[in-house]
Amino acid sequence: MSVTIETIQEARGRIAPYIVKTPLLRLQNLDPFLGCKVYAKAECMQITGAFKLRGALNKLLSLPQEQLARGVVAASSGNHGRAVAYGAKMLGTTATIVMPRTAPPLKVENIRALGAEVVLCDVSERFEIAAKICAERGAVSIPPFNDEAILAGQGTAGIEIFEQAPDLDLVIIPVSGGGLIGGVSTAVKSLAPQMKVYGAEPAALPRYSASLAAGSPVTVERHFSIADALAADTPGSICFPQVQKYVDGVVAVEDDYLLKGMKLLLTEGKVLAEPAACIGLGAVLQGLITVTPETKVCFLLSGGSVGLDQLDILKKTV
Amino acid sequence: MSVTIETIQEARGRIAPYIVKTPLLRLQNLDPFLGCKVYAKAECMQITGAFKLRGALNKLLSLPQEQLARGVVAASSGNHGRAVAYGAKMLGTTATIVMPRTAPPLKVENIRALGAEVVLCDVSERFEIAAKICAERGAVSIPPFNDEAILAGQGTAGIEIFEQAPDLDLVIIPVSGGGLIGGVSTAVKSLAPQMKVYGAEPAALPRYSASLAAGSPVTVERHFSIADALAADTPGSICFPQVQKYVDGVVAVEDDYLLKGMKLLLTEGKVLAEPAACIGLGAVLQGLITVTPETKVCFLLSGGSVGLDQLDILKKTV
Repeated sequence: MSVTIETIQEARGRIAPYIVKTPLLRLQNLDPFLGCKVYAKAECMQITGAFKLRGALNKLLSLPQEQLARGVVAASSGNHGRAVAYGAKMLGTTATIVMPRTAPPLKVENIRALGAEVVLCDVSERFEIAAKICAERGAVSIPPFNDEAILAGQGTAGIEIFEQAPDLDLVIIPVSGGGLIGGVSTAVKSLAPQMKVYGAEPAALPRYSASLAAGSPVTVERHFSIADALAADTPGSICFPQVQKYVDGVVAVEDDYLLKGMKLLLTEGKVLAEPAACIGLGAVLQGLITVTPETKVCFLLSGGSVGLDQLDILKKTV
Repeated sequence: MSVTIETIQEARGRIAPYIVKTPLLRLQNLDPFLGCKVYAKAECMQITGAFKLRGALNKLLSLPQEQLARGVVAASSGNHGRAVAYGAKMLGTTATIVMPRTAPPLKVENIRALGAEVVLCDVSERFEIAAKICAERGAVSIPPFNDEAILAGQGTAGIEIFEQAPDLDLVIIPVSGGGLIGGVSTAVKSLAPQMKVYGAEPAALPRYSASLAAGSPVTVERHFSIADALAADTPGSICFPQVQKYVDGVVAVEDDYLLKGMKLLLTEGKVLAEPAACIGLGAVLQGLITVTPETKVCFLLSGGSVGLDQLDILKKTV
C-alpha cells in the first residue's frame, strides 16, 4: 500500500461522518497586506481544533477491534494527541498521550479533558517513551505523521480544498514531519496538477529544506520556534517521497514573519489560528513565495490551539 | 416609500459589486457551550469590518451626483463612519465623521486612514454637531440608521442569511438604533415567515425593550456598556415600526454575558468579533432566549473592529 488519491478517497468515506468539512474562507481584507487574493482553509475550526482529527480517525477506524481494545498511545506536541484522545473516547478505548514538557498548558488541558492519560517528557524523548509504553501495555501506537493511514486521512483536506475552490493558483501548507503536506499535496496534485503546492517550515527547524536538497531525509539540529506544533527534526520516511514527488517547494520562515502573519490574520482577517498555522502567511510576508495581486493563494490554517495569554506576544509584533 | 423586501432586493443589486457576501459559518465547536446548533453570519469579515458598508453604500449610490459632490457627513460610534468614509473615497467625494470621544482609538484611526475628517465630541452631541456641519457646508447627512435607504442596505444581509441557510430556526441580531434589525428582520420574515428573529441590546441601554413595551419609541437613560457600537438611546422612528412588525422579541443582555460570548467565539469558535457583535451569544448564555440542542441559531456578528489591547478584558472573563 502507498498513499494515493484512491486511499485518500477511501479515508474520506471512512471519516466523513465524524469530521467537519471546514470552511474555505475568502479573506479579502488581507489582500492588501499579502499582495495576493487570500483564501484560508480553516482547519482551526475543525473538531478538536486542528486537521489532526482526519488522520487520527482514519487510523483508528482502520484498526481491527481487538487491537483497538488494547488502548492507543501517541507522541504529540499537542494537536495529534487531542485528536487521538477524542477518537479513542468516541470509539470506547483508552488513550495515553506522550507530550513535550514545553507544550502549551492549554493543549495539555484539552487532552486531559477528553479522559486521556498525559505523560510529559523532553521533546527529543517522546517517540522512545511512546514506544516503551506500547511495548509494556500491548497498546497500539498511533504515529503523528509517518504512517500511510495518517497521511491518507490528512489528505482529505486536500480533496475539500479542490472542491471548494478549484481555481486556486497556489496552496501553502505548514510543514513538520510531513503528514499534512504529504497527504494534501498528493490529493491536490492528483485532482488539479496545475495548482502549485508549497510547504512552509520554521527557519529554526528546516528539516525538509535540508532533506530535499540532500535527496533523502536528514535530521536537523533542534532550535526553538514559536511554532510549537511544527517540532519534528526529521521528515517521516513515508512522508518524504510524497513531498518529493508532489510539492513545488518548501521554504523556511522566520518566527518574526510568522507572528506578523498571525497578527494580520487575527486583526484584519478576524480568524484566530495558532502560530504554526500562520507560517504560510509568514512565508509570503517574508517574500519567500512569489505572488501577484491576481494570484489566488489558499493558506491551510492547520490548527487553532492558542490561549489568550499567548496573544500578548502579538502586541509587540509590528 | 417604505422598507420592503422589494427595496431590499433593489439595494442588493445596487451594492452587490462593492460588498462581500460574507460567510455563514457553522461553528459546531460552540454547540456544547451554547446548547444549540451554532451558525454565525460573519459581517466582521465584511469590507471595512462591519455590516455598515451595506447601508452606507446603498445610501451613497442613491444620491444624485450633485448632492454627492458637496461631500457627506456622518455621526457614528465608529463602524458607520468607516463605511461612509470608505464609500466617499470610492465615489470620489469628501467625508466628515462626527465621533464620540469614547470611541476606541482603533476605530478613529481606521477612519482617518481612509482620508476622512474626524470631529470628536460628547456622545450625546454627535447628531446635533453633524447637522450643524451639514448646514454650514451644504453637505449631505448620511444617517447611521434612521433612513429607508440605510435600512434597505442592511437588510441585504438578511437575504444572504436566508440563501445560505434556509432551514435556520432562529436569527439573533445586535440592536442599537434599529437599522440592522429593521432591515434584516424585514428580509428574513418576508422570505421565511417561520424563522424566528430576536434582537439583543445592552441591559445598560434597553431602548427597544422599553419602547416595545410602551408601543412607541422612548428614550432611555444613558449608561455604560462595553458594546460601544450599540450606543443609541432611542429607536429610530423609521426602524421602530419594522421591528414592531417583524421581530419576535428583543432581550436586554448584561455585559458580563456578552464578554463570555466574545471569549467563547474567539477561543472555541476561532472568530474575532467586537463586543457589540457578541451580544447575541450573551443573550443565549444569559438564558434570555430559549434554545435546545437541535435549534439552529444564527448569530449575526455585526462587526470586528476590536484592537488587541481590548482583548485583555477577556482574560478576566470566566
